[in-house]
Amino acid sequence: MSERVGRQSVLVNPPPYLSTTATVVGPKEGQGPLAFDVDRIYDQILSGEKSFEAAELKMLKECCVLALRKSNLSRDDIDYFLAGDLLNQITSSGFCALELALPFIGVYSACSTIALVLSLGALLVSGGVAQHILIATSSHNCSAERQYRYPTEYGFKRPPHAQWTVTGAGAGIISREGTGPKITAITTGKVLDLGVKDPLALGPAMAPGAASTLTRHFQELQRDPSYYDLILTGDLGKVGKQINLEILSRQGYNLSRYDDCGTMIYNLDQQQVDAGGSGCACMAVVALGHIYRRMMEGELNRVLLVATGALHSPTTCLQGNSIPVIAHAVALEM
Amino acid sequence: MSERVGRQSVLVNPPPYLSTTATVVGPKEGQGPLAFDVDRIYDQILSGEKSFEAAELKMLKECCVLALRKSNLSRDDIDYFLAGDLLNQITSSGFCALELALPFIGVYSACSTIALVLSLGALLVSGGVAQHILIATSSHNCSAERQYRYPTEYGFKRPPHAQWTVTGAGAGIISREGTGPKITAITTGKVLDLGVKDPLALGPAMAPGAASTLTRHFQELQRDPSYYDLILTGDLGKVGKQINLEILSRQGYNLSRYDDCGTMIYNLDQQQVDAGGSGCACMAVVALGHIYRRMMEGELNRVLLVATGALHSPTTCLQGNSIPVIAHAVALEM
Repeated sequence: MSERVGRQSVLVNPPPYLSTTATVVGPKEGQGPLAFDVDRIYDQILSGEKSFEAAELKMLKECCVLALRKSNLSRDDIDYFLAGDLLNQITSSGFCALELALPFIGVYSACSTIALVLSLGALLVSGGVAQHILIATSSHNCSAERQYRYPTEYGFKRPPHAQWTVTGAGAGIISREGTGPKITAITTGKVLDLGVKDPLALGPAMAPGAASTLTRHFQELQRDPSYYDLILTGDLGKVGKQINLEILSRQGYNLSRYDDCGTMIYNLDQQQVDAGGSGCACMAVVALGHIYRRMMEGELNRVLLVATGALHSPTTCLQGNSIPVIAHAVALEM
Repeated sequence: MSERVGRQSVLVNPPPYLSTTATVVGPKEGQGPLAFDVDRIYDQILSGEKSFEAAELKMLKECCVLALRKSNLSRDDIDYFLAGDLLNQITSSGFCALELALPFIGVYSACSTIALVLSLGALLVSGGVAQHILIATSSHNCSAERQYRYPTEYGFKRPPHAQWTVTGAGAGIISREGTGPKITAITTGKVLDLGVKDPLALGPAMAPGAASTLTRHFQELQRDPSYYDLILTGDLGKVGKQINLEILSRQGYNLSRYDDCGTMIYNLDQQQVDAGGSGCACMAVVALGHIYRRMMEGELNRVLLVATGALHSPTTCLQGNSIPVIAHAVALEM
């Protein structure tokens, strides 16, 4: 049976398997350095649809269908569809659930969604109420930008600490029996707010959330950062990544094998994405595509995913509130 | 260990207790027929705050604090805060989680949120990863109306099938050991879409969702509706309630002990709420206040809650999509 360790962590027992993954991306991500590990690249930002929201939904559905196909499972073998996204009322996930016709659990955790669905999925499978759970998340640069910031036609001037919302989707199947990395431990985040009010400075806002959850994870599970072959944050970007490293260093943790998906998914020098990638799909695509392949090939054995999310809305920002943030950690081990 | 029964249901074993509940409401609900079962009534719609969103957050926080106080538990005894609401990016729940400083799991299931948090909370406690989970949800008439429909100042003409979003919040504590009703079974909904496009006709849109989940529940658990002292839907209102009864009747189920929270929370003849109440707080306030008291006093022993949610957003409606709906069922037994 799973065991709670400390205030925020759980050792998942029996640990379920992340038995299959699938990823799809848009055109800009398809020109990035990790594109070879993606299952499908759409070469048009609208992917043949009439709206950005419809394009995001199409990618998410495609990704779920790909995961099912790669797993050799049928839809009837899947007990729950567990998903969330950035859009108001998580409509990408809800409309995708309609097509899949599976019992649906919708979550909202902004860009940390991939870690929350992996965590909840692992607990439900390990707890015996499901054999297989399909988890998924998505984001789309244009649907997110126009919802959170400015009309996409407006062409506002981006500051150098701004990040680029990743267009894409990631899906996976968590299975009681199977092969692939096991989900062995989770650390569920608390919400923090360090007073950042600029909704374009999400990396700096979220970095203390990542540092808090990482510190908790190391302390509660009595693990040194060196336990992991790779520690991966979700979408801090190059500014937030540096802040996260500095906070952890001051707390006595030096992360030598550490990277951030936001700095990996694009070629930061050439692709004009400023501080790097962000959005639900950022860690989903990097972790379920590139990292999953490297784990399956034996190159990485223990990976800690720490996905961060900013829990503001345009309304809360306009009303003068600062940005609350959260981070959830999930340990994957071969 | 919990046992999956059929495609959508779980018999929760060991069944955890809904050991404490608390409810707060706004002024209109405070004049309704169930106000005596509420812990606190705010006599101002802004409850002393500067925005409707801040008022909703204040009510949700107050409700969580009341639940903790009534339970004699401290915040340190609570393992997770599991919550969701109607606002974009579930900001009421996220900002409340910041104040509570508890590991936070955010969900989105529109007006069916109370049943989803009860379901997930029961599975996590029963699965052994938590001793106590604080669950909560909220809605506010004015924050919801201006987000989903028209500016609150506009005074648009409401059709008779429109419903009135309930201002209030409900919170509860799910405990491994304790007293109170046990959460014995859950049926997780699939998303349906029967083509309703009018975002003011949510009762008619959601009724088939309720009927689908109820039918599944009866079939998979081999229970007749007469097993329950009361079957309670969330917020179908008087139009949706009638449609739900008709669908079920055609499928051979006659619900004699049945009611809908949307028709109970207001005096429909006098309070100018058209077809009745709606919103996350509708079932939360009725079930965690009025029904919980009647269960604790021995008047009701077995109650089935079936909360319905409409998973559209203003954007999906403007883009011409019909409204996808979901319903989750939770069985409470003394």
